[in-house]
Amino acid sequence: MLKIGPYEFQSRLLLGTGKYPNFDVQKEAVEVSESEILTFAVRRMNIFEASQPNFLEKLDLTRYKLLPNTAGATTAKEAVHIAKLAKASGLCDMVKVEVIGCQKTLLPDPFETYKASEELLKEGFIVLPYTSDDVLLAKRLQELGVHAIMPGASPIGSGQGIINPLNLSFIIEQATVPVIVDAGIGTPSDVAIAMELGADGVLLNTAVSGAADPVKMAEAMKLAIQAGRLGYEAGRIAKKRYATASSPTEGMSIG
Amino acid sequence: MLKIGPYEFQSRLLLGTGKYPNFDVQKEAVEVSESEILTFAVRRMNIFEASQPNFLEKLDLTRYKLLPNTAGATTAKEAVHIAKLAKASGLCDMVKVEVIGCQKTLLPDPFETYKASEELLKEGFIVLPYTSDDVLLAKRLQELGVHAIMPGASPIGSGQGIINPLNLSFIIEQATVPVIVDAGIGTPSDVAIAMELGADGVLLNTAVSGAADPVKMAEAMKLAIQAGRLGYEAGRIAKKRYATASSPTEGMSIG
Amino acid sequence: MLKIGPYEFQSRLLLGTGKYPNFDVQKEAVEVSESEILTFAVRRMNIFEASQPNFLEKLDLTRYKLLPNTAGATTAKEAVHIAKLAKASGLCDMVKVEVIGCQKTLLPDPFETYKASEELLKEGFIVLPYTSDDVLLAKRLQELGVHAIMPGASPIGSGQGIINPLNLSFIIEQATVPVIVDAGIGTPSDVAIAMELGADGVLLNTAVSGAADPVKMAEAMKLAIQAGRLGYEAGRIAKKRYATASSPTEGMSIG
Amino acid sequence: MLKIGPYEFQSRLLLGTGKYPNFDVQKEAVEVSESEILTFAVRRMNIFEASQPNFLEKLDLTRYKLLPNTAGATTAKEAVHIAKLAKASGLCDMVKVEVIGCQKTLLPDPFETYKASEELLKEGFIVLPYTSDDVLLAKRLQELGVHAIMPGASPIGSGQGIINPLNLSFIIEQATVPVIVDAGIGTPSDVAIAMELGADGVLLNTAVSGAADPVKMAEAMKLAIQAGRLGYEAGRIAKKRYATASSPTEGMSIG
Repeated sequence: MLKIGPYEFQSRLLLGTGKYPNFDVQKEAVEVSESEILTFAVRRMNIFEASQPNFLEKLDLTRYKLLPNTAGATTAKEAVHIAKLAKASGLCDMVKVEVIGCQKTLLPDPFETYKASEELLKEGFIVLPYTSDDVLLAKRLQELGVHAIMPGASPIGSGQGIINPLNLSFIIEQATVPVIVDAGIGTPSDVAIAMELGADGVLLNTAVSGAADPVKMAEAMKLAIQAGRLGYEAGRIAKKRYATASSPTEGMSIG
Repeated sequence: MLKIGPYEFQSRLLLGTGKYPNFDVQKEAVEVSESEILTFAVRRMNIFEASQPNFLEKLDLTRYKLLPNTAGATTAKEAVHIAKLAKASGLCDMVKVEVIGCQKTLLPDPFETYKASEELLKEGFIVLPYTSDDVLLAKRLQELGVHAIMPGASPIGSGQGIINPLNLSFIIEQATVPVIVDAGIGTPSDVAIAMELGADGVLLNTAVSGAADPVKMAEAMKLAIQAGRLGYEAGRIAKKRYATASSPTEGMSIG
Repeated sequence: MLKIGPYEFQSRLLLGTGKYPNFDVQKEAVEVSESEILTFAVRRMNIFEASQPNFLEKLDLTRYKLLPNTAGATTAKEAVHIAKLAKASGLCDMVKVEVIGCQKTLLPDPFETYKASEELLKEGFIVLPYTSDDVLLAKRLQELGVHAIMPGASPIGSGQGIINPLNLSFIIEQATVPVIVDAGIGTPSDVAIAMELGADGVLLNTAVSGAADPVKMAEAMKLAIQAGRLGYEAGRIAKKRYATASSPTEGMSIG
Repeated sequence: MLKIGPYEFQSRLLLGTGKYPNFDVQKEAVEVSESEILTFAVRRMNIFEASQPNFLEKLDLTRYKLLPNTAGATTAKEAVHIAKLAKASGLCDMVKVEVIGCQKTLLPDPFETYKASEELLKEGFIVLPYTSDDVLLAKRLQELGVHAIMPGASPIGSGQGIINPLNLSFIIEQATVPVIVDAGIGTPSDVAIAMELGADGVLLNTAVSGAADPVKMAEAMKLAIQAGRLGYEAGRIAKKRYATASSPTEGMSIG
């Protein structure tokens, strides 16, 4: 069970809603994924323009929690503004704080992210900051009171997977709130690695929406979340340099 | 569908039966895994001593294909002898050829493995050699007529996972028979990586039997096989050095 | 040529002076390394207690720049205090800002590091902050006016080498001041990798002082710096999935 | 000191002579590298056509041992034929056995490599087989009497470096003859890694000849060999998960 603020979820997969081939594929991928939390860029949604089509119309909103993100913001001020717009729609009180400091790497600005999180906590939001895997930054955000930490695995949309499993595991070890690995996921195995490290969940988007078959990949990701989580709970064998026979034959009578 | 020789299987997970805490845990792990092929060391089984307990008695043998291995053999001659003993039991006509060349690394001897495979093919066995990830050795075994190639990911029981994904993918690219990754698997993500590379199946033992909770790990491995296979079929996104926004905001009207 | 603030150095290797077996080994390692910048923990030195032995007495201080670090500080205030003590000795005006946020990982606190750097810049120090590999944190420190960025490769003394070469290369790409990889180095190859990524220098300590033969390792590190730097300047070949013959034989007349 | 058969060498770098921009660059790279063993494809050389230019004319052959390779051979028979042609020139009695099994990966055929090595040993050659990193294949070749083992790091000319350091270290651990890492090297750090694993030498070609500045890269490789070897001899620190202070401050009196 994943708990974020007052909410509880069966699924540990958070799915982004950007860049699907079309709304039908998006809808099917969302359903197959069994995600209960959908994230989207507030600035990209037409939620405030009734005349425009909108993927939210396609979804049964009673089944999903919406997690708007502040993509497009480069300052705390912009992020807070965007978050308030989203909340004003009445559709959500969670927000993924995303304050980008560099357009080439889309990596987050630690100071503006911190400031935006602080402000939005005061405003009563359920705050989930997207952050680097800086271990102390994660700790400071946690001390601030954020409701989850969302460290990136690698740059957004890069598909490079988890470059620094050590930092992720340090963040997880020290965590008192859920740790949701966000950004950079490319494959089901990337998801499984995150979960095996003890992450509470994974947020991904391009890995599914950009796959050759997004619906099939959505299913793969759902299963990878479960496989990785069970693997974490089941307790893996230790790594050894040399081999260990699974088929000992000492003292056998045959041959 | 996995096809090995004349046989077809729904499951792509081959499970070893060594070193479980007890027969009950083993039985439950086997069931949860949904494996249809069970491997065991002929020299370790009491199949020829009716007075001894034997895990086969616990299993409904109509549901499983047995894949005896020749663990303990260090020469082709010994391997052939062991394989014949197994076949003589009337329980199986498949054999995993395992001819170990070094007791510390438990890595296979290429020449004796080749010779044993050649001999057992002549004898009418369905032959699955355990081999290194030497790409040309795999090719030569394939040309010999073996029914599947079983390259090791890393040393048996080491839990180091797939050290050389390039060689595995070369073996898979050139393969005309199933490629089943064997040995060294530690985690569900290791399994997913193998399947994402295009492997036809994965054989593992210690990763499940040696886990803190073998039954839970068996389920994790089952799901990882499915996740990895679907991920392979779904077509992953390309890796990129820099980021790519999933939430483009150009030309947005808000903020 | 490495330039830090007003100073120029032939060597790109910065050597720490902690934990050598004895002063003689330390002295010899320092000489063999050809380092021109020596770092040491202010709090560990007896520089203020004339009655105590002190490795500085063993060195010809006209040949080296001293880079005191603020190890032991957990707040900006402590770091500033320690830096001022060091400067008051009259031996140095450079300082490595080290504000640790976690005693287990010895990873730096981004906020206190930033604050300490800001304060010490105002006080006229040449400021080199030890930081995580957070790309935007490095950028913000650079904008603040620090004289070099010192991102960690992995935890201090861990010998894990460079876990995230991508972040390091992003930091280097955006850098307008020298980037000196600091912490986590274990081997000459780790050093070479850092330099091949385009780092301007490497700071290490335990990799040399903790080696079985510190003097020999000091020489290895000196050579690795040169090898990596030359490799960077020489322009490596691109990585390819498949092979490319170095010995083309098409159209040959023999055989 | 590297000893191969009856010969002794100061340098542990073996340099290939293929694909340099021109003979002058090649000559300078060779000199700067301080290599004492030069390898070349017999089929590519004009050593039997006096009217054609030939890089050997540019070199002082009293300073180098020549190591002709059998590139272009796909069978033992061809390799033996090529080796004999080379020896007939009176310039060399060493041979790098290279029997390629696949034109896409340029990976070696284990059986033909073994056969060619066996035959050439009988003919009195100093035999250095290029092989995969199959640990038992290396052992069998060694038992055959070859004078060095040359496992590939990754495909020829791929610049992927050492994909499987475990297999290399197993080969080195069991070796009774020199182990020279051959093929796939891209950077000085790749060379250093090989040497730190305990390799006796490294053979490379494209990494130098294909670099933007081959002469500078040749120098980088020379230094990397030395750095890696010294690092191996000096005894690296152990890797640790958590940090270890190089600047202990417990019980310090300042601050």
